[in-house]
Amino acid sequence: MSGASPGSPAALRHINQAHVLAVVRRSEALRLGEIAETTGLSRPTVASALDELQEAGWVEFLEEHPDGRSRLGRPARLVRFRANAGYVVGIDIGAHRASVVVTDLEGKEAATVRRSTSDAHDRHQLLAAVRTAVREALARAGIDRRAVMSVAVGTPGIINPAGNIVMQAPGLPGWTSLNLARELHRSFHCAVHIENDVNLAVLGERWRGAATDANTVVFILWGERVGAGIFIDGRLHRGAAGAAGEIGYLNVVDPMGADVRVDKEGRGPFERAVAAGAVMTLGKEAARRHSGALRELARTDGHLDAAAVFAAAARGDATARTVVDTVTARLARGLAPLMLVIDPDVVVIGGGISLAGPAVLDAVRKHVHRLTLVPTPLRLSTLGDDAVVSGAIRLALSDVERHVLPSLEAPEPDSSAGLVLRAEHSQNRALPKG
Amino acid sequence: MSGASPGSPAALRHINQAHVLAVVRRSEALRLGEIAETTGLSRPTVASALDELQEAGWVEFLEEHPDGRSRLGRPARLVRFRANAGYVVGIDIGAHRASVVVTDLEGKEAATVRRSTSDAHDRHQLLAAVRTAVREALARAGIDRRAVMSVAVGTPGIINPAGNIVMQAPGLPGWTSLNLARELHRSFHCAVHIENDVNLAVLGERWRGAATDANTVVFILWGERVGAGIFIDGRLHRGAAGAAGEIGYLNVVDPMGADVRVDKEGRGPFERAVAAGAVMTLGKEAARRHSGALRELARTDGHLDAAAVFAAAARGDATARTVVDTVTARLARGLAPLMLVIDPDVVVIGGGISLAGPAVLDAVRKHVHRLTLVPTPLRLSTLGDDAVVSGAIRLALSDVERHVLPSLEAPEPDSSAGLVLRAEHSQNRALPKG
Repeated sequence: MSGASPGSPAALRHINQAHVLAVVRRSEALRLGEIAETTGLSRPTVASALDELQEAGWVEFLEEHPDGRSRLGRPARLVRFRANAGYVVGIDIGAHRASVVVTDLEGKEAATVRRSTSDAHDRHQLLAAVRTAVREALARAGIDRRAVMSVAVGTPGIINPAGNIVMQAPGLPGWTSLNLARELHRSFHCAVHIENDVNLAVLGERWRGAATDANTVVFILWGERVGAGIFIDGRLHRGAAGAAGEIGYLNVVDPMGADVRVDKEGRGPFERAVAAGAVMTLGKEAARRHSGALRELARTDGHLDAAAVFAAAARGDATARTVVDTVTARLARGLAPLMLVIDPDVVVIGGGISLAGPAVLDAVRKHVHRLTLVPTPLRLSTLGDDAVVSGAIRLALSDVERHVLPSLEAPEPDSSAGLVLRAEHSQNRALPKG
Repeated sequence: MSGASPGSPAALRHINQAHVLAVVRRSEALRLGEIAETTGLSRPTVASALDELQEAGWVEFLEEHPDGRSRLGRPARLVRFRANAGYVVGIDIGAHRASVVVTDLEGKEAATVRRSTSDAHDRHQLLAAVRTAVREALARAGIDRRAVMSVAVGTPGIINPAGNIVMQAPGLPGWTSLNLARELHRSFHCAVHIENDVNLAVLGERWRGAATDANTVVFILWGERVGAGIFIDGRLHRGAAGAAGEIGYLNVVDPMGADVRVDKEGRGPFERAVAAGAVMTLGKEAARRHSGALRELARTDGHLDAAAVFAAAARGDATARTVVDTVTARLARGLAPLMLVIDPDVVVIGGGISLAGPAVLDAVRKHVHRLTLVPTPLRLSTLGDDAVVSGAIRLALSDVERHVLPSLEAPEPDSSAGLVLRAEHSQNRALPKG
């Protein structure tokens, strides 16, 4: 949107381009007549919009259908979206790992790089690891950073509403109060959006994971950390302070306890009661009291983590099953309020503990359905470790669709906020034509 | 929107009309030049749109400014929205009372009728009381039912997503499984929308009450019933089964209890623990054990209800204060999860108990802020008993804006759902011109 007045010829040309592009993007390749039919625009109007879109680099013409069936007779002129007119980058920064994914404008992967961050002891080392991974990913994709049109970054913590500053992130060294967008901006030539990683996970599962059919989705991170990402009526719900879904601070286990009582690692009572660490603690206690699989694990190699407890329970070990029952009953106490408040179409459970498989769901379901009004479907994450970075790609693609591609989501003429956004993105319109 | 193809002359005329009407509706009266300037449309385009809008009955021309300042010189031709081109009706149906409000298209009240429903023992008596109130309200407003363009009705219970059937409403006789929209449709000639009353209360407080400045609002009904209405990013959040905000079913007082345990009146554990009845029970128990204001109340006239307990606490009675502290501590246990999940801009507390005034807020605040991460502002309802019917008017006005007035919210060309809605509303377009 070029800020043209509504009803002016420039605005109408823009609207027609946006309509035509939307139709072209939904198909692999289309004839002009098909576009005219679908949009209801006249053939000359479509032809003119296509010329302008080609000029801007968004579409290209083919002389025959890609599957080669149209070789007989006059070659049909086909138009298709130039998915490689630009690229987006999704980044997931965690305490143990950073992932960087580069895709084209249809979300097709061009490169993925993963790096350990466990050795990073301060923000500089962590940022250096991320920047190295970004360079490597762009090199592997074979693209220049100027071809990147939008970047989205997921990280633990509460992010400010503007999406650039990490307000609180006790789990990462030196991360609290960091302007992460500014730190990463110099690796790119475009906007960098920071988002809470669990919020991105729900976007990812909604886009390509376990909840593609749902309109309102709650994603539960259940691993070393505990949190919820909430997607309502087609949009991410962040909350007034960016703190929506911070269920780790629920106080459901010690209900008449005094307050939220954040511990020195910044974890709330619900997180302490149900996260992977709690499962391990319960498992070790049980191993001391009872013989069986858990005691064997504790004795032989000491590798008695949450996954081992769930695996032993799945194999039928009675002690492990008691531990699993205790912790899923606790989890249900926190999920029930969330489900009563939101009443989502589906709840997706992800994070390390979800890797134990469908038995986790069965155990949670047993407890949570007694505490809620509506039996909301529970599903396991299908994206696993890639949920956050997938959501980052989805967020970056949406940003391109809204602010870089010709779009019908034109800001109101008197919306100064819209004008600022347009100005920020105007640099992206000088497209690589090659 | 007449289903015209995008980019066609009819569609462009419609877009221009919608732009012009939006600008006219924001002001009391405007000159043609002012409209051209604000919309960016040319004067001939504005003139043509205004003629069409006048023809349809949406605007009227005045020869001088209503305040009379323009009497000197050539009279300016002013245009204004015809707020009385149609009317909307908001209805609140409760166990004790039905309220019917009629307003013009600017939400200006034309008539209000309130009737007791306490004597209605089945659905027929209740519906008869509502229909009588509707007739009386239309008569007082001096309008024919054909002038009503949209009706919204608030009632306790879970309403189906289509907004016509009461799925569950244990509190009203014969109300469960009732197609309330169909029952009321014959009183009108237009669409009738059914909505949960607490959902409408949050719309009302957002529109004209305690939360006009907020984007995400939670309304807590705290009286004989307990529930929450949730307004997120400019929209009502209903939930997958229409059951969002059903916090009455939270189980926070008996946290390791077995299940939701709905009692025979259909009330959940949280509702039983904090509703007006619980306050009265606690007050009576306290009156037996301790002398003071509560014992006096219990002895003299037996009128020891929730309001009396809060009033006695406000006057400093120690026993009453203990009761208030107990019940607000319980309420906080249910509000905290809601606030951690949603992270709203503001929480508005309404319902009978809120009438006890600011002391209620102070008591709740003291307990809830220890249990949450972000100190969300708490406010008292300013609409009181009128919150639900105000929200009903707001919902009906939004329906008129989207589906009857020329609107920019045009459905996608290939959206069959949009086409159905347009067909449903087409009958409303035969406007009274008088």
